Amino acid sequence: MLSDSRFENRRRALAAKLAAQRVDSMLLTHLTNIRYFSGFSGSNAALLINKDLSARIATDGRYTTQIAEEVPDIEALITRALTSELLKECEGPRRVGFEAAHMSVEALEQLKQNISDEITLVPVSGVAEDIRIIKDAVELDKLREVADIANEAFAEMLEAGELVAGKREIDVAANLEYRMRLKGAERTSFDTIVASGPNSAKPHHGASERVIQHGDIVTVDFGAHKDGFNSDTTRTLIVGEADDFSREIYEIVLRAQEAGVAVSNPGTSTQDVDRACREIIEDAGYGEYFVHSTGHGVGLDVHEAPAAAKNSQGELAEGMTLTVEPGIYVPGKGGVRIEDTLVIKAGGAENLTKLDKKLHII
Amino acid sequence: MLSDSRFENRRRALAAKLAAQRVDSMLLTHLTNIRYFSGFSGSNAALLINKDLSARIATDGRYTTQIAEEVPDIEALITRALTSELLKECEGPRRVGFEAAHMSVEALEQLKQNISDEITLVPVSGVAEDIRIIKDAVELDKLREVADIANEAFAEMLEAGELVAGKREIDVAANLEYRMRLKGAERTSFDTIVASGPNSAKPHHGASERVIQHGDIVTVDFGAHKDGFNSDTTRTLIVGEADDFSREIYEIVLRAQEAGVAVSNPGTSTQDVDRACREIIEDAGYGEYFVHSTGHGVGLDVHEAPAAAKNSQGELAEGMTLTVEPGIYVPGKGGVRIEDTLVIKAGGAENLTKLDKKLHII
Repeated sequence: MLSDSRFENRRRALAAKLAAQRVDSMLLTHLTNIRYFSGFSGSNAALLINKDLSARIATDGRYTTQIAEEVPDIEALITRALTSELLKECEGPRRVGFEAAHMSVEALEQLKQNISDEITLVPVSGVAEDIRIIKDAVELDKLREVADIANEAFAEMLEAGELVAGKREIDVAANLEYRMRLKGAERTSFDTIVASGPNSAKPHHGASERVIQHGDIVTVDFGAHKDGFNSDTTRTLIVGEADDFSREIYEIVLRAQEAGVAVSNPGTSTQDVDRACREIIEDAGYGEYFVHSTGHGVGLDVHEAPAAAKNSQGELAEGMTLTVEPGIYVPGKGGVRIEDTLVIKAGGAENLTKLDKKLHII
Repeated sequence: MLSDSRFENRRRALAAKLAAQRVDSMLLTHLTNIRYFSGFSGSNAALLINKDLSARIATDGRYTTQIAEEVPDIEALITRALTSELLKECEGPRRVGFEAAHMSVEALEQLKQNISDEITLVPVSGVAEDIRIIKDAVELDKLREVADIANEAFAEMLEAGELVAGKREIDVAANLEYRMRLKGAERTSFDTIVASGPNSAKPHHGASERVIQHGDIVTVDFGAHKDGFNSDTTRTLIVGEADDFSREIYEIVLRAQEAGVAVSNPGTSTQDVDRACREIIEDAGYGEYFVHSTGHGVGLDVHEAPAAAKNSQGELAEGMTLTVEPGIYVPGKGGVRIEDTLVIKAGGAENLTKLDKKLHII
């Protein structure tokens, strides 16, 4: 199958949903949605998909060559006024859906001033994301590839002795990122977290110049981005020797994480995945220190549908991705998080994170 | 001066502009604006600044420890509903400005449904950016620091022989990024561009697995991010030996770039900076191949005000930053871009990019 027919099939799936949204066309402005439905990977674009499956894409002059290569099957406009130029060629009364979550109030006002009175702009939410939530075979291969880049880089970084007492957090992050980059990652999926000692109690610490000490907990949360796709993994290790507190919270989080993985099957509600993790942490007396939700989908966006949280909606289905990443964070003492990325499958999830989870004292 | 009084001074400057916007309070949702006015560096926040200079900030549970450390002088709410919780404590009729360019249509609708009828939400554009356009001494020091990280990493990468025929573009990018990271960069300011041979004709090429060849033009566009601030530099080199075409376009772009730097003084219109570069390229017969604008400000955002383009508005003033980055891109043949980042000063700009610009054949 040629790559363009894959994109056309995706556009067909979107076009089939337009009637239910009571629109004739859909104007896409979220770059990852544009990439999903057209293949264009540039940083500035808009895409119009009509219910008759015709489509038109717009970008600026920096991408003239790139868009011709990446999107051979859609007419491309080169312009600065992306959205209004796309809509200029619409004729007659038309209802055009726009991405309400990905259009600023200012951009909408500017657009309204520059299009025909015959066009009615209709806010639409989640229609592209509803299609993207189920990954096809090509996407799953890309997700395995970025996960493997991250898996291998992390294992080799540990083996090379780059995460030891005396290194700064930033040294560990830089080394891990360099290894991912040489294996083909175009960038990290998000800022790498290397949180050591007291910093491990901050779920979203970055990587500071703090020098890692003997006895530290070290949490590393990292991801590789390639061809638009992302990976997301967290491992927590202990340097030198583990005190009772570190051992205790590690063991609780690991049990919680494994319980979450075990229930991540088609038909399970996302709330139940969250509950499977959260109950174990609550029963152990640390409920107040699990301060975030349990997981999220991973794809072209590093955080995408579905969500697994206390109040999340919906059930898992085959072909979805989900991180399972419970944590315990005790301010001033330390924290642990363990995270795998799963592909939901009948008969048990495929775990893209092929890294050991037993307590690792380095 | 304590860091918090610096932030309070900035909030005072914002509060002083609220009357002219006919609002009582300003709700900030753009993360770099939030960082500028509060010091908070997390990835999820909203900030309310009232005309009496009182302020309140909101983030989620992942940042409880971090916000207490970074923002000791403002009351912090820990919540998932950032904007509506901030506005819940407003009493009586009030006009609240919001950032029209940084609030999605969906977020605005959700907010409207969750606040008192006595609050009127008013779209506001550019008020924070108008303050940020002039950099203070602390900001200039931070900008010099990130520029130096990038300057030194690039010079050392060249010296180490990492940019030579036989290396892949991605190897060069990875090595440069690793060096910036070890010097303290928290991340790149944007995806590093290493565009070799025919790829140099694409202004926004990334860094592919293409192997650099003898005779290639190689354009490297890179930036270091630290403490919220960004750098932005482009250098173009030639590997092995330069053919006549490469020499010709390099010499034209260099003359254009130096002309742009020469006129970048307080009082010059940004259009005139663009014109200074563009005329030289047009006169040399390559006008159609200079497909982007000449420059932009650099600060907490890598692209911020002012803009220097054919139709840009306004004049340069002391304390602004500006990139000067003309280019020529001939599809199928190759391209050249040269970019410095300047600080505008009376008596001539300070050039933060301390890297040679003469034709470098490596």
